Amino acid sequence: MGWGDLGAFGEPSKETPNLDQMAAEGMLFLDFYTANPLCSPSRAALLTGRLPVRNGFYTTNGHARNAYTPQDIVGGIPDSELLLPELLKKAGYVNKIIGKWHLGHRPQFHPLKHGFDEWFGSPNCHFGPYDNRERPNIPVYRDWEMIGRYYEDFKIDLKTGEANLTQLYLQEALDFISKQQASQQPFFLYWAIDATHAPVYASKQFLGTSQRGLYGDAVREIDDSVGKILNHLQQLGISENTFVFFTSDNGAALISAPTQGGSNGPFLCGKQTTFEGGMREPAIAWWPGHIPAGGVSHQLGNVMDLFSTSLSLAGLQPPSDRQIDGIDLLPVILQGKLIDRPIFYYRGNELMAVRAGLYKAHYWTWSNSWEEHGKGIDFCPGQSVSGVTTHTQEEHTYLPLLFHLGRDPGEKFPL
Amino acid sequence: MGWGDLGAFGEPSKETPNLDQMAAEGMLFLDFYTANPLCSPSRAALLTGRLPVRNGFYTTNGHARNAYTPQDIVGGIPDSELLLPELLKKAGYVNKIIGKWHLGHRPQFHPLKHGFDEWFGSPNCHFGPYDNRERPNIPVYRDWEMIGRYYEDFKIDLKTGEANLTQLYLQEALDFISKQQASQQPFFLYWAIDATHAPVYASKQFLGTSQRGLYGDAVREIDDSVGKILNHLQQLGISENTFVFFTSDNGAALISAPTQGGSNGPFLCGKQTTFEGGMREPAIAWWPGHIPAGGVSHQLGNVMDLFSTSLSLAGLQPPSDRQIDGIDLLPVILQGKLIDRPIFYYRGNELMAVRAGLYKAHYWTWSNSWEEHGKGIDFCPGQSVSGVTTHTQEEHTYLPLLFHLGRDPGEKFPL
Repeated sequence: MGWGDLGAFGEPSKETPNLDQMAAEGMLFLDFYTANPLCSPSRAALLTGRLPVRNGFYTTNGHARNAYTPQDIVGGIPDSELLLPELLKKAGYVNKIIGKWHLGHRPQFHPLKHGFDEWFGSPNCHFGPYDNRERPNIPVYRDWEMIGRYYEDFKIDLKTGEANLTQLYLQEALDFISKQQASQQPFFLYWAIDATHAPVYASKQFLGTSQRGLYGDAVREIDDSVGKILNHLQQLGISENTFVFFTSDNGAALISAPTQGGSNGPFLCGKQTTFEGGMREPAIAWWPGHIPAGGVSHQLGNVMDLFSTSLSLAGLQPPSDRQIDGIDLLPVILQGKLIDRPIFYYRGNELMAVRAGLYKAHYWTWSNSWEEHGKGIDFCPGQSVSGVTTHTQEEHTYLPLLFHLGRDPGEKFPL
Repeated sequence: MGWGDLGAFGEPSKETPNLDQMAAEGMLFLDFYTANPLCSPSRAALLTGRLPVRNGFYTTNGHARNAYTPQDIVGGIPDSELLLPELLKKAGYVNKIIGKWHLGHRPQFHPLKHGFDEWFGSPNCHFGPYDNRERPNIPVYRDWEMIGRYYEDFKIDLKTGEANLTQLYLQEALDFISKQQASQQPFFLYWAIDATHAPVYASKQFLGTSQRGLYGDAVREIDDSVGKILNHLQQLGISENTFVFFTSDNGAALISAPTQGGSNGPFLCGKQTTFEGGMREPAIAWWPGHIPAGGVSHQLGNVMDLFSTSLSLAGLQPPSDRQIDGIDLLPVILQGKLIDRPIFYYRGNELMAVRAGLYKAHYWTWSNSWEEHGKGIDFCPGQSVSGVTTHTQEEHTYLPLLFHLGRDPGEKFPL
């Protein structure tokens, strides 16, 4: 999902009333980033509080080295990494992941081996359908048990875009929250839905309801589900005791535009790139009674910060035996403070750009290769900026390409 | 000003708290258009309720034929046109224009000859400074009297961008409203500020306060002034008896980007073009106690509609002796209705495109000429879309270039 996909962030169809309401009741982060313009390394950063180059999830040439290509998952989260749920467990939290794990599919990478107590979902995206002999369909798990496979037991109709997965994920979330409230045990829920990842899907009741096509239907279903989850917390009387954060793991994939791709608002390019469209994300913090309603923050935030922030909420310290790159955002969220810190934009293991304040310096520029481009693959359709969205990897380490993101959020005019 | 310049419309610096609050208390129009991608014809359409091709303000080659080039004003609003203030006068309204008139500078075009009772402002933009002998600076009027000239009596510092004009226009507005409230006479105020038109300016107290540079300073001052006007109406106890509408006359001029140009959000190109960036505008209706707070409308609206809507509010009928192209938006604003109507995109006297529902058909495409482009003038910087943002006037009348603005608001993927 991209920065521009929510009404609160300026999507011109304004079809996310629940997320917009969440923002109105909580705090909107306008300058919040993911750790990498791809799914797996961003998820690794969220759960470890560390840059993907540190936690083994650096990527090369636009593909995660360790974890992921659509076809082959060869690696996963190293045992040496300490994940957020492992740490929260020490404070009595019950941890559940619902949806896409994407940090390895082999037994040693199983989320229940890395601090989660429960899992309903899949080790990878809902790619497929595959030939079952040569390459089996992606499995779906409940906890340790494989309970079926996408396209076989969990239907996805690629023609109509119909799949009821978000509804399954929603029900799992509501049930888990009810159970935890009943047993009076603190919980951490990582609700990792993937309906906006191509092939995009939505439930029957949402199909055709958006002005934005199937992608918009998927966004509307996610929005509706978030509203139901927040409402459930309020109904159970635990909303003032539950911190909720909404964000995305990379910008909208413009290679899938327009039918399967979302919006990065006024920003340049999308997923896979280190331009703003690839890494600036929608982000909303919600905690009634604690976060002042209607807050707007320009804090430079990163998905890694949710690691330290969550530990802080649980009264825990981040591990001291390793470098933690995320920061605790509670002073920002609760007291409106601004913490001076840079944003690093990695692609693979290459530091492509750095943001400090409103300035962003590109040390390398690259959209995608001429070879890919020649085959019609375009990470920046209709957004070619001469010398910026280059199709070769251009080095600018001696004289960085500098942009002022206030005057030029679209990175079109190098200073 | 462009669609993307307000926080409520997704500007990533979110620096318009007063306009955003106006939207939260009123109704946000997401699909509202101007009548032409240039100032003068749009203003003629607002005041006559008629398409510029009807009211004599059609334009050719990107310049208003009748009224305007920066250097030479040769025409003006014809006497045969019936302007909104002329009609409102019949219902006892006192009419004032503050700011830029732009419908002719010769005596016969004076706003007080066309229904306005008072004027503080100028017949043209604040261009200059000019050589006083060959070409005098643009004059500033109070009612019939010329009281000075820009750059001479009304300072604009082109180096720092400092000018206190918006403050003068604000004070005029507050005083006029106070006077009308005291005398219990209904009023129509056309507050036509021009701080975001290049050369962009702001008052000293706003200079350097925006993340967006001088353009952002100008937007912040306009936003602050709108807040003060709305607050004044509330203080005087007449807010529930006063309909307020905020919009712009064309999209942000990307030729002035990034230092003097604004944002058209996710839309293509800007001022002078018939792509969405040139003609889709920010629009907010405010009328406490009448318009449900927080409303969002997808009604296809046009600046011409404010003519019929204003007449309707005053209990008047539009003139029956001529074609009126605007519609009465009150059923939309007060009852949330949706009225089926198309949007016409003219450039000069050429019908370039039509929008019906979410579909937009381009019969002609054109950004700007190769000749201009070769001199560095670009109406679509960083937004070149092959076959769409053409530098020659391309005809598609036999097979229109069709876009779905829901799935593809940026007009990048012809169907």
